[in-house]
Amino acid sequence: MVHDSIHRESRLAAIHAIMAVRGVEAILFLDLKNIRYLTGFSGSDAALLVSEEQTVLLVDGRYTTQARKQTRRIRVFEYREKVAGIVQVASGLRVKTLGFEAAAITYDFYAILLKKLKSIKLRAITDDHLGGLRSIKSRREIAFIKRAVQISTRALESTLPIVKPGVQETDVALELDYRIRQEGAESLSFETIVASGENAALPHARPGSRRIKRGDLVVIDFGAVYEGYHSDETCTFGVGRLNRAQKDAYEAVKEAHDRAMDAVRAGTACREIDGIARRCLEKRGYGKYFSHGTGHGVGLDVHEAPRLSIASNGHLQEGMVVTVEPGIYIPGRWGIRLEDKLLVKKDGHEVLTRFPKDLRIL
Amino acid sequence: MVHDSIHRESRLAAIHAIMAVRGVEAILFLDLKNIRYLTGFSGSDAALLVSEEQTVLLVDGRYTTQARKQTRRIRVFEYREKVAGIVQVASGLRVKTLGFEAAAITYDFYAILLKKLKSIKLRAITDDHLGGLRSIKSRREIAFIKRAVQISTRALESTLPIVKPGVQETDVALELDYRIRQEGAESLSFETIVASGENAALPHARPGSRRIKRGDLVVIDFGAVYEGYHSDETCTFGVGRLNRAQKDAYEAVKEAHDRAMDAVRAGTACREIDGIARRCLEKRGYGKYFSHGTGHGVGLDVHEAPRLSIASNGHLQEGMVVTVEPGIYIPGRWGIRLEDKLLVKKDGHEVLTRFPKDLRIL
Repeated sequence: MVHDSIHRESRLAAIHAIMAVRGVEAILFLDLKNIRYLTGFSGSDAALLVSEEQTVLLVDGRYTTQARKQTRRIRVFEYREKVAGIVQVASGLRVKTLGFEAAAITYDFYAILLKKLKSIKLRAITDDHLGGLRSIKSRREIAFIKRAVQISTRALESTLPIVKPGVQETDVALELDYRIRQEGAESLSFETIVASGENAALPHARPGSRRIKRGDLVVIDFGAVYEGYHSDETCTFGVGRLNRAQKDAYEAVKEAHDRAMDAVRAGTACREIDGIARRCLEKRGYGKYFSHGTGHGVGLDVHEAPRLSIASNGHLQEGMVVTVEPGIYIPGRWGIRLEDKLLVKKDGHEVLTRFPKDLRIL
Repeated sequence: MVHDSIHRESRLAAIHAIMAVRGVEAILFLDLKNIRYLTGFSGSDAALLVSEEQTVLLVDGRYTTQARKQTRRIRVFEYREKVAGIVQVASGLRVKTLGFEAAAITYDFYAILLKKLKSIKLRAITDDHLGGLRSIKSRREIAFIKRAVQISTRALESTLPIVKPGVQETDVALELDYRIRQEGAESLSFETIVASGENAALPHARPGSRRIKRGDLVVIDFGAVYEGYHSDETCTFGVGRLNRAQKDAYEAVKEAHDRAMDAVRAGTACREIDGIARRCLEKRGYGKYFSHGTGHGVGLDVHEAPRLSIASNGHLQEGMVVTVEPGIYIPGRWGIRLEDKLLVKKDGHEVLTRFPKDLRIL
């Protein structure tokens, strides 16, 4: 069990500050990642009420023991019915206006809550207020992320020998997933992508029955979860001999990737990282083949704040963990994506992922 | 690709009926399982607008090709931004009042939609209206469910030889999950439960590092997904020699399981199935150790309507697929659960799961 009391207290202090700004006496959390971040509880169902005086974790009978074990200085309240439990706790805390996570609550649940809370007013707390909550990582969180990377790196390294002509994408994915868990991951970060040939032109391809061929580019996007924290990395391998167009595009992606990474340090605008990668690809004529943002934060979620895209506001800060992942996708033909994960430092960064991104032919 | 046009049309007719009852000109769907059910589209992001005249599937650029391939007689609309797309389509259809799936939309999304829709009114469509939508299965759906069961049965049968003293729960789960996918599942129905000894007393245990011991009861709750449809089954095995208390409890669960299954036929009240299992266990003194409902529907979701619990309303209908899964959980000691899946027929049922539930010692 992980106790991280000092961090939890500063995290709760950040919530208290949001409460003050929004004029609410308490905030109701339903997002399980946020609940884990604020309390340490890792179960699959809960609600959390944070007020100035008290932090109350609400769970059903399945999780009472686990909630007590995993948390400190937090009141654990066992409910039979969730909304009734929330109403009881909020009333006990004499809350007049209750904030709620607007992105984590369904309209249905909101409507029931509104009806049952009677005299307590509800006020939406949006991602504008909470979005950056988890973006700066503690030393402990970084250690978990590094362990997740270690697991997924070993798993891919031992899977690579089977990546050869004639093998199906699903076979590679099955093998890689097996090894990720065998190495000690609690789960996969996301459904592993193994996309070969024309399938690699789809950024979100699912592994299918296509057999890998000589001359293919194979995109493998994969990750492990350790103590709730995600790794996320993408490699693109050549199989046999690549043609000139493929090699040229690989070089372009590698250059965009390297240049964008060079700019990762505290103070750089998030949209500038995206801009650097995009301009690099545009200059070489690949601009229209890069159809997604350049990166995102990673932590308890595989995609979290900050985003590194044209639309991003804000700047990189020390302690953020972000991906840099430019790509080129030629519809119906092939695709390339190179993704590393970096810890933002004051004067630069530390690359957390381990696979070299130079062209590797299998 | 699966085309199931006749069923899709009767499914859409059911939606039109709900629209009439709720006084809306169209309903907005965001639940991907419902969208798949109504259109055949299996991608990971979409919105669906059903009106009397038109059914419009809204997807982003990643999914346009797939949406056209998987659907028939449905208009595919490609959006750049989801809410803007919904507003444009709804306005084009001259909708005055738009129903929306209240359980599938976040408050956040609702608030944005409300703001952007301007003159179009929104009206919540709740599970009271939609809950039973998918509960009666077509022949095709039943065939998919049977295939999912076949896959998971084979996988468990070939995994059982490794279940022996000294092996960790996680090893068994890893092996079983690997084989489920190797047999052709597109994914697992849920995170496989392998719970031994005192861990088996937790109905929702996650596989952990505990090593299986002689004298353990091992609960394995597992399933495969095929073409979107889930299997779900639970076996409890003895390892080596069981004591009298364990054997007696196993017999009690088996009896509750058999009696409840005997009552599964069209017309039986859902709560009666639960009542039969519960009374059986109460009579033998195990009442307080059975802490969950007796069963649930299974289909595109592993848990869907109908529920078979004390609180259930409604009756079993021909074509429903439901589980029966009584259990006994002795905190800190051991647990037993036996779960089969049944197709409800006019005068009885067909058991879809394959493992015999007589006590099996490994």
